[in-house]
Amino acid sequence: MPLPTNTHRLAEALFAPRSVALIGISDDAAKTAGRPLRFLRKHGFAGAIHPVNPRRETVQGERAYASLDDVPGTIDHAYILVNTPSVEEAVADCARHGVAVATILAAGFAEAGEDGRRRQQRLVELAGAGGMRLVGPNSLGVVNAYRALTLTANASFLTDTLPKGRLTVISQSGSLLGTFLSRGGARGIGFAKMISVGNEADLSVGEIGAMLADDPDTDAFLLFLETIRRPEEIARFAALARHAGKPILAYKLGRSEAGQELAVSHTGAMLGSDIAAEVFLRRHGIERVDHLETLLEAAPLMIGRAPAAGRRARGVGVVATTGGGAAMVVDRLGVLGVEVAVPSAATAERLKTAGIAAEPGRILDLTLAGTRYEVMRAALDTLLAAPEFALVVAVVGSSAQFNPELAVKPIIDCAGNAKPIAVFLTPQADATLSLLAAHGVAAFRTPEACADGIAAYLRRTQRAPEAAIDAAAVARARSVLQEAPGEVLDERRSAAFFAALGIPPVASITLDLDGTLRSLPFPFPVAAKVLSADIPHKTEAGGVALGIASPQELGERARVLVSTVRERRPEARLDGILVQPMTAGVAELLLGYRRDPQVGPVVTVGMGGTLAELYRDFAVRMAPVSAAEATDMITELRGAAVLSGYRGAQAGDVAALADAVARISMLAQLPEVVEAEINPLIVKPAGGGVTAVDGLVHQARD
Amino acid sequence: MPLPTNTHRLAEALFAPRSVALIGISDDAAKTAGRPLRFLRKHGFAGAIHPVNPRRETVQGERAYASLDDVPGTIDHAYILVNTPSVEEAVADCARHGVAVATILAAGFAEAGEDGRRRQQRLVELAGAGGMRLVGPNSLGVVNAYRALTLTANASFLTDTLPKGRLTVISQSGSLLGTFLSRGGARGIGFAKMISVGNEADLSVGEIGAMLADDPDTDAFLLFLETIRRPEEIARFAALARHAGKPILAYKLGRSEAGQELAVSHTGAMLGSDIAAEVFLRRHGIERVDHLETLLEAAPLMIGRAPAAGRRARGVGVVATTGGGAAMVVDRLGVLGVEVAVPSAATAERLKTAGIAAEPGRILDLTLAGTRYEVMRAALDTLLAAPEFALVVAVVGSSAQFNPELAVKPIIDCAGNAKPIAVFLTPQADATLSLLAAHGVAAFRTPEACADGIAAYLRRTQRAPEAAIDAAAVARARSVLQEAPGEVLDERRSAAFFAALGIPPVASITLDLDGTLRSLPFPFPVAAKVLSADIPHKTEAGGVALGIASPQELGERARVLVSTVRERRPEARLDGILVQPMTAGVAELLLGYRRDPQVGPVVTVGMGGTLAELYRDFAVRMAPVSAAEATDMITELRGAAVLSGYRGAQAGDVAALADAVARISMLAQLPEVVEAEINPLIVKPAGGGVTAVDGLVHQARD
Repeated sequence: MPLPTNTHRLAEALFAPRSVALIGISDDAAKTAGRPLRFLRKHGFAGAIHPVNPRRETVQGERAYASLDDVPGTIDHAYILVNTPSVEEAVADCARHGVAVATILAAGFAEAGEDGRRRQQRLVELAGAGGMRLVGPNSLGVVNAYRALTLTANASFLTDTLPKGRLTVISQSGSLLGTFLSRGGARGIGFAKMISVGNEADLSVGEIGAMLADDPDTDAFLLFLETIRRPEEIARFAALARHAGKPILAYKLGRSEAGQELAVSHTGAMLGSDIAAEVFLRRHGIERVDHLETLLEAAPLMIGRAPAAGRRARGVGVVATTGGGAAMVVDRLGVLGVEVAVPSAATAERLKTAGIAAEPGRILDLTLAGTRYEVMRAALDTLLAAPEFALVVAVVGSSAQFNPELAVKPIIDCAGNAKPIAVFLTPQADATLSLLAAHGVAAFRTPEACADGIAAYLRRTQRAPEAAIDAAAVARARSVLQEAPGEVLDERRSAAFFAALGIPPVASITLDLDGTLRSLPFPFPVAAKVLSADIPHKTEAGGVALGIASPQELGERARVLVSTVRERRPEARLDGILVQPMTAGVAELLLGYRRDPQVGPVVTVGMGGTLAELYRDFAVRMAPVSAAEATDMITELRGAAVLSGYRGAQAGDVAALADAVARISMLAQLPEVVEAEINPLIVKPAGGGVTAVDGLVHQARD
Repeated sequence: MPLPTNTHRLAEALFAPRSVALIGISDDAAKTAGRPLRFLRKHGFAGAIHPVNPRRETVQGERAYASLDDVPGTIDHAYILVNTPSVEEAVADCARHGVAVATILAAGFAEAGEDGRRRQQRLVELAGAGGMRLVGPNSLGVVNAYRALTLTANASFLTDTLPKGRLTVISQSGSLLGTFLSRGGARGIGFAKMISVGNEADLSVGEIGAMLADDPDTDAFLLFLETIRRPEEIARFAALARHAGKPILAYKLGRSEAGQELAVSHTGAMLGSDIAAEVFLRRHGIERVDHLETLLEAAPLMIGRAPAAGRRARGVGVVATTGGGAAMVVDRLGVLGVEVAVPSAATAERLKTAGIAAEPGRILDLTLAGTRYEVMRAALDTLLAAPEFALVVAVVGSSAQFNPELAVKPIIDCAGNAKPIAVFLTPQADATLSLLAAHGVAAFRTPEACADGIAAYLRRTQRAPEAAIDAAAVARARSVLQEAPGEVLDERRSAAFFAALGIPPVASITLDLDGTLRSLPFPFPVAAKVLSADIPHKTEAGGVALGIASPQELGERARVLVSTVRERRPEARLDGILVQPMTAGVAELLLGYRRDPQVGPVVTVGMGGTLAELYRDFAVRMAPVSAAEATDMITELRGAAVLSGYRGAQAGDVAALADAVARISMLAQLPEVVEAEINPLIVKPAGGGVTAVDGLVHQARD
């Protein structure tokens, strides 16, 4: 997938400009708006630097230009440092002068409400009119360590050295540039490029990533995300990076509601679901990590190692010079559901042959054998060669601090293996961490980040297989939609809609509102529900009666239903009484489909019932999914044991369930569907299929 | 609670010996068994050091004694460094020579199986015979920074300085001494005492803690635990520490099954339940943290601050110079269920008056106001004074690294407040962390540890109120037990047992095995179950029939029950058919009571049913509990919403449920009960009480 040449020119202007202008640079080098000049000089940027400040002849001892008109030659990249109200003029100026790209420091745009959004839109228009691209607003700048380009206002760049490395950071938080520069610097982790994308008014995370996918200085991408903007560009970036064999890791805020709210108010983004964002990232092979430092530490596990094709050994082997230290990692891995495997008999035998007299067990504890190069080396060689392990964890204790030649050197000497080694050092040992970083070994400062990074590595798989779309079924479902009058389909139409899609509904007949029964095509007991497109949640409106045993009871309870609902929801139009047989199966599940405002169509399957809802036991994927992926989703449910014959009970028809999940996910082909849900879907014993008992469909109407 | 004088003498011999002997010290200072001499000399221990090595005249250039017989004067503390097979003789020697306390390095005792356990027992006996106390075996030693006592083999003590501090570490893992020494050293956190307790053959975590509770050099205790040994001594330690106003924090392995297994195999301890250990620690005011570094970082939040008496403001206020950095902490706090509160209108007004022009919200983001002392100081003063906050989080960005005078100095100047400040610095800033440590401010390196420490602080409460015991009920329950023939009570006797305790059982009658019905004191439908003390899990044995509608069906299904059970469990003795009315309520719960092998009696309440079991939705406490504590437990359940009237459903009788929890917890008064369970307990609508439908009681029999 070659990028057009102008993309390369843009990347050059952005990260390797021959000339930069600092618009509104302050004379005070300590001030935010004064820092970029100081940093560029300090780190020895070799290109032309043009300070622009209409109020001063010199800035920080250098000649300042009154305006861009006075600046000689062309400007590749301008950093606009003026206050919010002056940004528009500065952008217009830059565009007029043929600047290729401008980065904007000021905040107060889309994240500051409707007015700000409009101001931001004007910036994009002004830039676009001159063919100029924008980074930000609200951007702390752009860094390229290989060009000593520190076009940034982040205070951490006051550091004396700018360590070069092979990681590129793309961040929605400008603060993170300093966080990673300083934390990485202390332990030998350097960076290729760093960029603070701010509000992404123009250039987005995805577009910037895509233009760097073939960057020869970059081996992996680290994303710090508060939200997902322009998912299609992120998807393109991910595809290019995958093609180039470069992993992308992401830390994303928003696991909690408080965090989600902050992200929205902080970035002015739309509120999407965090889990939808997570499955979006995973679908595109972007691994989300849970801990901040994992983002800094885990990339070497993945660099140069393609995701596994299909299922493979997932066991983790552990070798340690400290049992207690290793136990912290193993305990945490257990919490994350990662299997720490005991060496096989063959591996145990090979360890013995290698002269390693350690107890066989989850941790190959070398404490008794003594901390020596030969012992550690033989242990690592043996574990790395063992087919039962997908990855080896090496935990090194106190010797890591003053004697890395004993147990750390052998790790470095094994680092070229196709299987990765994850290292946790129990003491503070920055020099040793630097040594490991220099040799491309993933080393972790905390047992928690170590386990987090390992789990992320093991989650990596090839892209999900393409889902097969039943086009005829989708077309039939569309016709049902087109005949439906409003935004919400009533239960009868919903049933027809899902039936068209290939998900069988429960039998039903519709009676008049007085519940008068002529004949019933199924036996008692039955359930009765008011039929109304205006009442999506019938139970809460008092519109459902269960376990009705006779025609007489049906009539009585139908009348109660109607009067209750009329009292509670007087505005609702009632179209009849829907009667269905009482249905039972092995389990009740919930299927959901939704067009997430950030990332698009997602499909959900969860255990049904109130408790499962409270426990949030559901699995989510980008839609559509194949039946195989649907089966994976079902397996993920904590309540899935119920489907596979829990405690001697009957097993459920998982194949039919997976088919239903795949079918509801095909709604991704019907953009007019905003949301759809089947709750409950009854799963019958194996071979018996599934039955949709109640459903809900929302369609978009102009 | 004064300690006897000999405890003080023991503490002196242990941590402030006038003379130490190094039994089996190696000439090679790099070897584990050679390190203690090197370390003691390096750090300038002022007491007498007596190297003992029968095979050499000098060791590391010093005179070595051939045996203890040659050593002049008395020895307070001997470190036994010989190999496992020679330990016994060394212990006997030490005991014979009147050594006060011996610490044993070698492993290969209780953690190494039955033989090892016996060897360990002999060590205790040999020591006891001479009135000598033991630390270990499997101990990496004892450190007292205030006496330059580095009687340890942990390689990290090769460090040049031994930073003094006010934290004392008691660890079951010897490796942790080096982990904390080095990690603390890098950021200005020092220690008073450190001890690796090894297998706790004699001196336990609890006894050592108790003797240090009034240590003038110690402000807080940090425990690294793999298991709980001698809980009564830990309880005594906790009481003394509470009396002395010193917090105890603990990191405990075993959250996962893999971790639990490791702890057992690593320490030779009994397998208790991790959750039981956690509630044991909490009951005694020992706060368990989740992340390793939290243990190093969180103590200053608690030092000098007594746990809250009863409920108080639990909201957390956040002030930051970096919105992105603060969002990481807030997001994590949200995941942990900690409420980050928005400032009240009054607080917002005060902030405005103080000239702080920040947006009101969950994070008081000072980015726009600029990072200045006055702004940060005014913000902190205002938030600390606001009654809606129990704690204030301060997140400082890049300025923390090179300009701590801007936003860190004001934190230090506010550190004396009764409310604690938790600090997260986004950049690597070791000098600033040291500055904060020197002023007793809790500073965290990662957002995850910061949130973890805050959650631990907010969990601290005064001790739970004493549970009221219904002695008459307990006595009645005991009589039921005494009449029961075997270890397991059959369902009828179990019902009588719980009824005696004050938990009403469902009505029932017992029929002959042929199900012949004479008269039924309750209406159909009914449930029928085989009655047998040999079949605790009747459903799995095919011994339960539900929803029986008529006398005829009862007879038929009773016969099927009996034949099924006779086929599946031919050895079981069947005593009849128990018939009960079908009962329903607002919710089904599970009550459990168990004597945990590590920590003793614990009570459990959980949501009932298969899904709840799979989701592990239960709350656990040390038994007995008061009704108030039982109510807290119920509130903790994720499924508790069902009890309080979820989505318009009826609310349940939570008071009766809490009473039932308190009553089953009274079994702590009946040591003969090993385990008891009611499953399900039906909770009726408010005012309707609870009904025990099925129960199980195990009693200990010799």
